[in-house]
Amino acid sequence: MEAISYIMKRQDIKDLLESKEFDQPVHTKGWIRGERGNAYVRFLGLNDGSSIQNIQVVADAEKFDENLRKRFNVGAAVSVTGTLVESKGKGQSVEIVADQIEILGDADAEQYPIQPKAHSMEFLRENAHLRSRTTTFGAIFRLRHALSFAIHNYFNERRFYYWHSPILTASDAEGAGESFRVTNFDIDNFDSIPKIAEGENKGKIDNTEDFFGQPTNLTVSGQLEAELGALALGRVYTFGPTFRAENSNTARHLAEFWMVEPEMAFYDLEDNMNLVEDFLKYLIKYALDNYRKDIEFLDAKFVKENSQKKKEERAEMGLIEKLEFVLANDFKRITYTEAIDVLLKSKHYKKGKFQYDVKWGVDLQSEHERFLVEKHFKTPVILYNYPKDIKAFYMRQNDGEEAGKETVAAMDVLFPGIGEIVGGSQREERLDRLQARTDEMGITEELWWYLDTRKFGTVEHSGFGLGFERLILFITGMGNIRDVIPFPRTPKNADF
Amino acid sequence: MEAISYIMKRQDIKDLLESKEFDQPVHTKGWIRGERGNAYVRFLGLNDGSSIQNIQVVADAEKFDENLRKRFNVGAAVSVTGTLVESKGKGQSVEIVADQIEILGDADAEQYPIQPKAHSMEFLRENAHLRSRTTTFGAIFRLRHALSFAIHNYFNERRFYYWHSPILTASDAEGAGESFRVTNFDIDNFDSIPKIAEGENKGKIDNTEDFFGQPTNLTVSGQLEAELGALALGRVYTFGPTFRAENSNTARHLAEFWMVEPEMAFYDLEDNMNLVEDFLKYLIKYALDNYRKDIEFLDAKFVKENSQKKKEERAEMGLIEKLEFVLANDFKRITYTEAIDVLLKSKHYKKGKFQYDVKWGVDLQSEHERFLVEKHFKTPVILYNYPKDIKAFYMRQNDGEEAGKETVAAMDVLFPGIGEIVGGSQREERLDRLQARTDEMGITEELWWYLDTRKFGTVEHSGFGLGFERLILFITGMGNIRDVIPFPRTPKNADF
Repeated sequence: MEAISYIMKRQDIKDLLESKEFDQPVHTKGWIRGERGNAYVRFLGLNDGSSIQNIQVVADAEKFDENLRKRFNVGAAVSVTGTLVESKGKGQSVEIVADQIEILGDADAEQYPIQPKAHSMEFLRENAHLRSRTTTFGAIFRLRHALSFAIHNYFNERRFYYWHSPILTASDAEGAGESFRVTNFDIDNFDSIPKIAEGENKGKIDNTEDFFGQPTNLTVSGQLEAELGALALGRVYTFGPTFRAENSNTARHLAEFWMVEPEMAFYDLEDNMNLVEDFLKYLIKYALDNYRKDIEFLDAKFVKENSQKKKEERAEMGLIEKLEFVLANDFKRITYTEAIDVLLKSKHYKKGKFQYDVKWGVDLQSEHERFLVEKHFKTPVILYNYPKDIKAFYMRQNDGEEAGKETVAAMDVLFPGIGEIVGGSQREERLDRLQARTDEMGITEELWWYLDTRKFGTVEHSGFGLGFERLILFITGMGNIRDVIPFPRTPKNADF
Repeated sequence: MEAISYIMKRQDIKDLLESKEFDQPVHTKGWIRGERGNAYVRFLGLNDGSSIQNIQVVADAEKFDENLRKRFNVGAAVSVTGTLVESKGKGQSVEIVADQIEILGDADAEQYPIQPKAHSMEFLRENAHLRSRTTTFGAIFRLRHALSFAIHNYFNERRFYYWHSPILTASDAEGAGESFRVTNFDIDNFDSIPKIAEGENKGKIDNTEDFFGQPTNLTVSGQLEAELGALALGRVYTFGPTFRAENSNTARHLAEFWMVEPEMAFYDLEDNMNLVEDFLKYLIKYALDNYRKDIEFLDAKFVKENSQKKKEERAEMGLIEKLEFVLANDFKRITYTEAIDVLLKSKHYKKGKFQYDVKWGVDLQSEHERFLVEKHFKTPVILYNYPKDIKAFYMRQNDGEEAGKETVAAMDVLFPGIGEIVGGSQREERLDRLQARTDEMGITEELWWYLDTRKFGTVEHSGFGLGFERLILFITGMGNIRDVIPFPRTPKNADF
C-alpha cells in the first residue's frame, strides 16, 4: 500500500466530508484533534483547517502495529490513505477506513500545550502561535477571513476601488498625541544620533537626518488620504492596520487594529447612512450564508457561557438569533438631540441610574449608548448630527443652527453588546469653513494638500470607519478583542 | 429644470457610456477633464473615476450664460442634467446634451496644478494629492484595485484564508538591521525617557518602560507568522504593507511596500512552483479581461515612450503583447546550478560582457537574471535550488548533496523588465535542521514559538512572497515604483 499516497491526489477534509462518492480510495493529511477507541480499533478525529468538522479515521488495530498506534496523539500530523465510507456513527456522515497511516510529525502528549480539554483564554493567548489549532480559534479566524473577503467583494461589486493610504505619515493631525513614533535612529545609542547644532533646540535630535527627514508616525486613520482618492476616483475604501498608542488594557482596545474606511464623492450624510446599514447587513448575511457551521459552533459556546452568567448580565438573545434580528430590522436613526431627549425622559435617568451626566453637548458614555440600543430601541441605532465641539475638524457643519447648538453631519452606528462599531460623517467640503477649523487647530500649513481638494473642484462627500475587530466580536460572540486577531498588540505585549 | 437633479438618480459615467437607452433624461456628476468648442457650443469631457473614458457633455451657449460658461474649467466639479444621445463625434458612442449644469466646485485655471498638458512624473509626484485625477494615474490606481481584488478572489476560491500577520513585532530575525524602530517614547525630549539605573547599560533608555515593554519594529515580512496560520488552517495568505529602512533612492525600492505572502501546509517546492505560475497568470488575465481599457491606454503610452528610447534600451514587445505572451507560455523552470551553467556557456560571458563574476555559490546579479529571462529563455523563469549559504535560515535543506554544494529548496520567479518578482521556498520542517540554523544565527531563543511548530505536528509546507508593486509595474508598464502606489515613502519623503 506504501505507494498509494504518492499516486493519489490529496483532498481537503471539507471536500471529503461533503463527498458522496463512497467506497472509493481517498488520501488526505491533517492533524489529530481527538483520539479514542479500544484495543481493537482506534478512531482519530482529523482536521486540516478546511472545515470546523473533523473527519473520522477508523484505524483497525490489526493493520497498525502498537508502536505506530502509540503515536496517534492529539496534535500529531498524519497522512491517511483509505476508503471513504458512509458513517454509522452519530455526528458524521462519512468516515475513512484507513489502509495506511503515516506519522508526518509527532506531538508528545507530555509537552504539547493544546490538549483536548478546556483551556483558559489567557492560556491560549500565551500560546497564540498554537491556538488557531483549536476548534474555537479555527472558527474565529475562518470568520475573520470570510468577513475580509465579503468586504472586498461588497465594495468591488459597487465600483469602490481599494485604496492604499500610507501607514507611515509625517502628519499627526488626527493622532491627538496617541501616535507611535517611527525612526531609523539607533535610539538605544543616543550618542550616535545626529543633534541640532545651534538655536533653541540645540542638543535635541536632528530629525532632518532621520530616514524620512522629519518626525514620522504610524497612521491612526487612512481617512484623509482616502478622501484624496475619492475626490479623483469617485468611491474608494481602505482596509488595513491602524495604530493607536493608547495605554488602555481593556477587552476592547488594541494598539494595532484593522479599520475599513470607505470614502465616497457625491454622497451626503443620508447616502452614508444608507450605505453603512446595507454594508453591515451584507457582511452579517455573508457570514451566516457561507460559514454557518463555524457560527453554529460559536453560538452553542455563547449560549452555554451566557447561561452561566448572572441574570442581569445575561444577553437576551443567542448569537445566531441576534444576527438574524439585525438582518430583519431597520436600524433606528435619530439625531443626537433626540437621543438626549430620550435619555432625559427615561425612568433610568429619573431614578439616577446613569453614572455620567446627560445634557446637550456632552459626549455620550458607553452606559448611555447601551441604554439606547439595548433597553430603549432594542435594535442597532444610527445617531447623527452631533455637537460640533465634540467631533473632528473635518466634519461638515450643519447650517442655520442657533449659537451654542451648532452640530456637524456626523454619524455613529451603535450595536448591542458592542457600542460604537462605526463612526462617520459628511466631510466639510467648503474651504472657508474647513480652514476656519484647521486654523483654530494650527494644522492649516501641515494639511495644505488636504485643503487643496477644497480649492479645486470640491464636491460634497462622505465616509465612515468600521472597527473590523469590533465587527468580528459581534459576529463571533467573543468577549475580548485579543481573541479575534491572530497576534494582539497591547500594552507590554508584542509577542510572536 | 432646476428640480430635476434632485429627483433623478445620479448615474456613474461608466454606466452612461455603456447605456443604450438613448433620448432619456440623465443626471451625473464629475470633474471636467477637457473643455473645447466655440462661441455657440462648448464640449466638456466629464470624468467621475468610474471609467478611464470621459463622457462628452454638449453645452449649447444659448442655454448657459457667459458667466457660467467661464467657469467650465479643467478640474472644476459639475452636476449635469440632460439627455443621453448617440454621439455623432469620433471616439465616443454617447454624449449628454445638457439642460442644466451646476458648478459644484470651481478650479481656477491660474492656480490648479493639473492642467491638460504633459506634466513630468516628478511634478506629479510632488502633487500626489491630485495626480490620481489624471488619465494615467486613474488607470494605474484602478489596476491596483483590480489586482488587489483578483488576489483576494483567487485565494478565496481556493480556500486560502486571509491571515493578518502583525505589523508591529518584537522579532527582528528577518530584519537584518533594516527594520524601522517603533516607540512611544518622546525621542525629541531625551531627558523625558526612563533610563536604566545600573549595570553595563546604565544610562541607556529603558525599553521595559516603552509601550510594548521591549524594543519593537515594523515587520519586514509576515511570513513567519503566516506559517503559524498555515500549520493550523492549512492554507493562508497575507496581503498588506511591509517596511524596509533601506536607504536606496532607486526606481525599484520603497520604504513602505505591499507584499502578498501565501503559506501552504502539505505543499512541496513543486506544488509551490505550480501555484505561483497559476497565480501570476490568473492576475494578469484578470486585469486584461476586466480593465482592458485602462491597459490599452497604458499600452499606447508605453509604445510611444518605447519608440523614443535608444534602440538598445527598447523593449521588444508592447505592453499587451508582453502580457499575452506571458499567459501563452510556460514559465521556464531551471535549477540555480543549471542557470550558472547557461551563463558560463553564453557568448555574453565569454566576451566578458557581465560586470559581475559568475560562479557557483554567488548570488545572481540583476544583469545575470535579465540575461536569462530577456536574452536566453525569453520567457519568465523560475530558478530553484539555490546555494544554502545565500538564502534564508528557514528554507528547506536539500538532502544528499556533496559538501560545499549544499542547496535549499528556494525558488525565485524572474520577469522580463522587472527581475525578481517573487521569492519563495519550501520551509524547513525538520526541527533538528532548522534549529541548527537558528543556533548559528543566535535567534533560537527569540523564535521559540516558530520552532514550536516543528516540535508539534510538523509537516512539509511552502510559501512565497510577491512584491505587489513590482507586479503593478509589470502590468502597467510604468518604470518607477513611486508611480504605482498612491503615496510613496522613500528616503527623505513621507509627504501626504
